[in-house]
Amino acid sequence: MQGAWCKEWKQGRNFILKIEPGQNIVERLQIFARQENVKNAVIDSAIGSVKHVHFRGIKSGAKRPITEPRMRQHHVEGPLEMLGLEGNLITDDKGNADCHLHILISKSSGEVLGGHLYDAEVFVSCEILLTEMIVHGVERYVSKTAGTPTIFINEE
Amino acid sequence: MQGAWCKEWKQGRNFILKIEPGQNIVERLQIFARQENVKNAVIDSAIGSVKHVHFRGIKSGAKRPITEPRMRQHHVEGPLEMLGLEGNLITDDKGNADCHLHILISKSSGEVLGGHLYDAEVFVSCEILLTEMIVHGVERYVSKTAGTPTIFINEE
Amino acid sequence: MQGAWCKEWKQGRNFILKIEPGQNIVERLQIFARQENVKNAVIDSAIGSVKHVHFRGIKSGAKRPITEPRMRQHHVEGPLEMLGLEGNLITDDKGNADCHLHILISKSSGEVLGGHLYDAEVFVSCEILLTEMIVHGVERYVSKTAGTPTIFINEE
Repeated sequence: MQGAWCKEWKQGRNFILKIEPGQNIVERLQIFARQENVKNAVIDSAIGSVKHVHFRGIKSGAKRPITEPRMRQHHVEGPLEMLGLEGNLITDDKGNADCHLHILISKSSGEVLGGHLYDAEVFVSCEILLTEMIVHGVERYVSKTAGTPTIFINEE
Repeated sequence: MQGAWCKEWKQGRNFILKIEPGQNIVERLQIFARQENVKNAVIDSAIGSVKHVHFRGIKSGAKRPITEPRMRQHHVEGPLEMLGLEGNLITDDKGNADCHLHILISKSSGEVLGGHLYDAEVFVSCEILLTEMIVHGVERYVSKTAGTPTIFINEE
Repeated sequence: MQGAWCKEWKQGRNFILKIEPGQNIVERLQIFARQENVKNAVIDSAIGSVKHVHFRGIKSGAKRPITEPRMRQHHVEGPLEMLGLEGNLITDDKGNADCHLHILISKSSGEVLGGHLYDAEVFVSCEILLTEMIVHGVERYVSKTAGTPTIFINEE
């Protein structure tokens, strides 16, 4: 498809995952994927509350590829409500499920912050619903033109 | 699973729900769940516009459990765009579907607010897509250590 | 259903769609829908990074219907992280899939903006997962009382 790549996938297993207070979300998602042998998945829904949130944004006016000096990292102590965790787990070039997640968090003022998630610790609750994707010819690895890990879709 | 609880679920029915202007979203979701006999569900997607939004955030530096003095409540008159409504409906200890929802709303300035939703009134539109979850051994009730209603997963 | 309209739908095909840098998201979603003959779909998940984001919010205190003077449009140059793209594609009165999407974007400060999306250009990546909805008696067209395109659900 010109200007885009597209592929069909089939739904595998559906999971509900509750992560314990004090645990790191991305780390636990990776352990979950290994234990359940999930190669690809989509986050259907994720809410809860978090602490020690480490994420990044892209600097205004930045050019491609996205390199360190073109990003700005944030460490927010919290706790904060986690309003959303959007993204997917896609197999990397070593055969592991690689997490690409963007987080949305709110301060007590109601103001919402967010960005590309490195990791965050569960404060009180973390309820994740996800669906396994059965698909072949889809992988994520670092793209030189993007500067970041990117999905590659083999259309056929 | 150490540090987390995990359970598989099966997809039941899929619904599209359009809530009428002037109606309260959480109240209508509860009525919908009772009428359709939905015990557990995940919000796949929800957008629209809202008024009289009542939500809360967690105060910076708060400790567990989350008690009233550690939260801050907000009442926003609006109207505002509803950019997302994330969360789930899980059976409570009385057998009803309990809503746990986090809302994302934007002001005309483009600034986004949000938090744990108590309720909000539909302004012009409210389009919710949800999927029934068929699962046993999952319940939500108040946890003493959390201070708030929490999902409990009986792994077996 | 009093105060709401509700209808069951069946899941059709599942797609992963990666949109190329420099392409417009809404325009590409419409081309995708035409090429794959998708009439209705729900966005399961969408993240990436964007430029030239054109969206709108509703002015505080606005009354229905939503007319031009009651909205405020924004053009944000970026690039910015795209934290979420919520919404659906529903058949319009000409038989095409009409996109209703709300976008969430973050500045390098971590501050989140968003609103009703007109369109946005992909900066580095755009990973969309969506599910086709098989449903009859659901259409979107302009409602006089709403002022905007609205879903109409024929409950029988």
